[in-house]
Amino acid sequence: MVATPLKLFIANKNYSSWSLRPWVLMRTLAIPFDEQLVPFGAGSQAEVFGSFSPSGKVPCLVDGETVVWDSLAIIEYLAEAHPQAWPADRGARAWARCAAAEMHSGFFNVRNLCSMNCGVRVRIDPWPPALQAEWHRLSALWDEGLARFGGPFLAGSQFTAVDAFFAPLAFRAQTYSPALSARSNDYLARLRALPAMQAWYADALAEPWRHEGHEEEVRAAGTLLQDLRTSAAR
Amino acid sequence: MVATPLKLFIANKNYSSWSLRPWVLMRTLAIPFDEQLVPFGAGSQAEVFGSFSPSGKVPCLVDGETVVWDSLAIIEYLAEAHPQAWPADRGARAWARCAAAEMHSGFFNVRNLCSMNCGVRVRIDPWPPALQAEWHRLSALWDEGLARFGGPFLAGSQFTAVDAFFAPLAFRAQTYSPALSARSNDYLARLRALPAMQAWYADALAEPWRHEGHEEEVRAAGTLLQDLRTSAAR
Repeated sequence: MVATPLKLFIANKNYSSWSLRPWVLMRTLAIPFDEQLVPFGAGSQAEVFGSFSPSGKVPCLVDGETVVWDSLAIIEYLAEAHPQAWPADRGARAWARCAAAEMHSGFFNVRNLCSMNCGVRVRIDPWPPALQAEWHRLSALWDEGLARFGGPFLAGSQFTAVDAFFAPLAFRAQTYSPALSARSNDYLARLRALPAMQAWYADALAEPWRHEGHEEEVRAAGTLLQDLRTSAAR
Repeated sequence: MVATPLKLFIANKNYSSWSLRPWVLMRTLAIPFDEQLVPFGAGSQAEVFGSFSPSGKVPCLVDGETVVWDSLAIIEYLAEAHPQAWPADRGARAWARCAAAEMHSGFFNVRNLCSMNCGVRVRIDPWPPALQAEWHRLSALWDEGLARFGGPFLAGSQFTAVDAFFAPLAFRAQTYSPALSARSNDYLARLRALPAMQAWYADALAEPWRHEGHEEEVRAAGTLLQDLRTSAAR
C-alpha cells in the first residue's frame, strides 16, 4: 500500500503570503508534498478556490479525506506528526504560538498597505503612522525573540513555524523598505537566504500571471521603483 | 510547595469577545484560574493593558514566568496539559482547528458591524450584503460541523475549543438577530444555556462601566431596541 502524499493548494507565489507559510515550513522541514498551484483569476476567490477549499481561500492542505483549510491549522496539523514544527522548549513554544497567532489575527495595515508582491520595489512616502506603528511592533517582537532565545531564528537555533509565519514579511520588507532595527533586518535577510525562500522567490519572479487586484494594491501603496519579474506579463 | 495558579487577564465581560473565548473554555473544562478583570479605560489599549500584555491586548494568560498573550495560543497552551480542549478524533480536531483559526483571522464585518455588547438588542436595517455573507458563512460552517460530527457541539458530543471560539457569536446573534439556519440558531441557544455562558452574561449585565468606543460601535450599527444592563452607567 502506497501512502497518499499530502497535497498543498497554493496561489501565485508572487502574491500569496498565506500560501508561503506552510509551503516554506514543509520545504524546510523536508515534509514531502505535492504542490498544487492555482493562480488568482478573474472571478472571486470563492469561485477560483471554492472547488477544493471550503472557505474559498488558500492555502489548503489535503491529506486523503482530511481537508485543512487555514494556514495556522495546517501548521498545527503537521506539528502533530512533526513536533519539530514548534520549538521543543515549552516556554519558547508558547512564545512562538503567541507571535504566530498575533500575525494571523492582526497587522491589517501591513497586510493592506504593504501587500506581498515579491518582484517589485516600492517607495512609500509619506508613511502612514498606523502602518509605521505595526512595523515597529513587528520589529520589537522579532528583536525580543532573537534576544530571548539566542537566535539565529525567532525561537532559538532551529527554523520553526513562527519563522514560517513571518516569512512573507521578509519579502514585504524587501519590497517596501520599512524602518526596522538592524537586528530585525539581519533576521529578515537570514530568512530570505534560506534555500526554500530562494526557490519561492525565483518561482515568483518567473510567473507570467499578473492579477489586477494585487497590482492595484501596489500602485495604491506608493511609487513603483523597480519590477524585477522576468516573465512578460500575460 | 503550592503551584502558582493560572491568571487570566480579561477586559469587560459586556464587550470583550476575545476574553470570553479562553474564559468559557477554562470554566467549562474546570481548569482553575484567577480572573483578573481590567476594564477598558480612557487611554489606548496599549496604555490600559500594556503593563501585563506585550501586544497591549486581552486576553492574556500568565502561568508563573510564562506570558501567553493571544487567545488561540492560550488555547493551544492549555491543550498541551488538557488535551480534551480539542476533539479526540484527528479529523474532527483538524476541522475544529480550521474553524477556530478562520474565526481568529477573519469575519471583519461581523467584528466591526456587530461588535459584542451582551446587554443590548439592536435592529440592523438594511443589512449590508458583505455582513450578511459573513453570517451566512458562519451558519454554513456551524451546520457542517453539527451534521458531520453529530452534535450537540460543533465537533461532536463534547464542548471543545472550537465552541469556545464561537461563543462570542452566540451573544452577538442575540444582540443583532442575523438570519441563520434553524440548526445554527439552536446551536447558539445551546451555547448560551451553558452554565459558564450564563455566569458571563449575568456578570456582563451587572457591570457599571460604559466604554464610549464600544457604545459608539453599537450606535453606528443600527437602532437600539433594548438595554438590559442592570447597573446604572458610571
